[in-house]
Amino acid sequence: MSTGGPDLSNNRIVKLFGTRLPIIQAGMVWVSGGKLAASAANAGALGIIGAGSMKPELLKQHIEKAKSLTKKPLAVNLPLLYHGIEDQIRVCLDSGIRIFFTSAGSPKKYTPMLKANNCIVVHVTSTPELAKKCEDAGVDAVVAEGFEAGGHNGRDEITTLVLIPQVVDAVKIPVIAAGGIADGRQMAAALCLGAEGVQIGSRFAATIESSAHDNFKKAIVAATPASTMLVMKKSVPVRLLKNKFYDGVSKLEERGATAEELEQFLGKGRAKAGMLDGDMDEGELEIGQVAGMIKDIPTCKQLVDRLMAEYQHAVSRLPN
Amino acid sequence: MSTGGPDLSNNRIVKLFGTRLPIIQAGMVWVSGGKLAASAANAGALGIIGAGSMKPELLKQHIEKAKSLTKKPLAVNLPLLYHGIEDQIRVCLDSGIRIFFTSAGSPKKYTPMLKANNCIVVHVTSTPELAKKCEDAGVDAVVAEGFEAGGHNGRDEITTLVLIPQVVDAVKIPVIAAGGIADGRQMAAALCLGAEGVQIGSRFAATIESSAHDNFKKAIVAATPASTMLVMKKSVPVRLLKNKFYDGVSKLEERGATAEELEQFLGKGRAKAGMLDGDMDEGELEIGQVAGMIKDIPTCKQLVDRLMAEYQHAVSRLPN
Repeated sequence: MSTGGPDLSNNRIVKLFGTRLPIIQAGMVWVSGGKLAASAANAGALGIIGAGSMKPELLKQHIEKAKSLTKKPLAVNLPLLYHGIEDQIRVCLDSGIRIFFTSAGSPKKYTPMLKANNCIVVHVTSTPELAKKCEDAGVDAVVAEGFEAGGHNGRDEITTLVLIPQVVDAVKIPVIAAGGIADGRQMAAALCLGAEGVQIGSRFAATIESSAHDNFKKAIVAATPASTMLVMKKSVPVRLLKNKFYDGVSKLEERGATAEELEQFLGKGRAKAGMLDGDMDEGELEIGQVAGMIKDIPTCKQLVDRLMAEYQHAVSRLPN
Repeated sequence: MSTGGPDLSNNRIVKLFGTRLPIIQAGMVWVSGGKLAASAANAGALGIIGAGSMKPELLKQHIEKAKSLTKKPLAVNLPLLYHGIEDQIRVCLDSGIRIFFTSAGSPKKYTPMLKANNCIVVHVTSTPELAKKCEDAGVDAVVAEGFEAGGHNGRDEITTLVLIPQVVDAVKIPVIAAGGIADGRQMAAALCLGAEGVQIGSRFAATIESSAHDNFKKAIVAATPASTMLVMKKSVPVRLLKNKFYDGVSKLEERGATAEELEQFLGKGRAKAGMLDGDMDEGELEIGQVAGMIKDIPTCKQLVDRLMAEYQHAVSRLPN
């Protein structure tokens, strides 16, 4: 009754981040800059700047922009395999960022240093085993991301529905579910599985405030249930929206191409070309399987309000 | 309070089948004979005899056995692509079966005849589009089965978490979620997504009453989260437990083998050899991704009671 939101007094994710809601807007290359992160934060979620596609100076500008637009908690996502990671961390710390989402590398490498700097550290995992290693490395929470997620993906193809309960059973720290979450029904499902928060990427990519090119946003809205596929499995598995570039990759894989051939075909700059510059043919369009159920381009506030209304409705009709 | 079970007075699946619970024990080749179906039925679920691996005479024996062991509702699963399907249907009708789960073929072909014989018809789908076609063909409900499911699988690799809400939005008939459901948390998640029932396969394969060979049951219990993979994508996609046979398929696929080469390597009788006769090296072991979280071999009654207790616990701790 009264204000209408769910009772989150025992939810460790809102406590950890100091947010109103246990929703995390995922850090995404070329899509989640300072504007999206600040808008998500103002809507009640944790806003994350995706540093994977940013040089330190640009990252600094995005953090400053976000901080000028919100006083709410903000985080930065750092794929640990990129060059210049230590410069990125330095820029974040100097700019007052104290929440880090790390991915694509060992949680052992930077967690101690970040914890020593009084930061909150969350690492992204795709298996229960790695989640346990993250906990042992001292992270505060893990994101457990399933096969349906957009962009880079785990090798074992474990789906969110199967992954989350096993991660929850493997660790004591709170678990954030990611992959396949675009509406409040899916958020409620993730919380049934034992997750205490949800990280949402693709749905935030198709908001007004996302930096994705309009062509890309429109392509997401036009997607059907079968419009994405996980490819590049011999190199770095990645889930893409099907387009001309995807067709090329797919044909190479069908005839048993090697990782080297695939990487040569990929070349450089494909993700930027597609997602930021709007080349829908030759660009690499990283998006989750939920693209098929995204039908509009709302503001972050409209999206978050709708997610919570859908969540409440889903929970209210559950047989109890 | 009182009896403890959830209020299912508005649940269309228990009404449709006349069962106590909205749980369906999946029909599975070599695994779900009359004994398993009757035991699942006595535990409160809908028990299904998997006819895919049975000649009409054997199917008749399994139906008679099941009927001697329970007075509860029973169903038969018919993969429509197998030979002798019309003889199987005749045997079922003659033996008093009135609930049919059909799969692997067009729902248009046999639904009118079965409905004319006063039967309940449910068809298995892996996309929202096919679910709509099933509804148009006159089926009473659909099973929507995700990528994580064991055995034969859809080509679009849509996971249960992403598939169910889209199927629920596409049809008015009730939806049964399948793929990735082995405990009560996953059952609660499926109901959050809008499903009104769950079909559970792998978890029932590893029960006392399943016909799976003991070697296969033990291999399921020993499985880890990464122990299954979807293969044979150029032929008929199937999710298998990794073993020597899987390694062979995997190597062929890696070098770009054709569908013909794959089918030749598969040969005949692999599923029986593995699942019924217990050849863990050369057999084809069809199982879902949830194998990684199956840790014991309970009776059907113990399993169903536990599922419902876990369901209630998952629902009770959801923020509301």
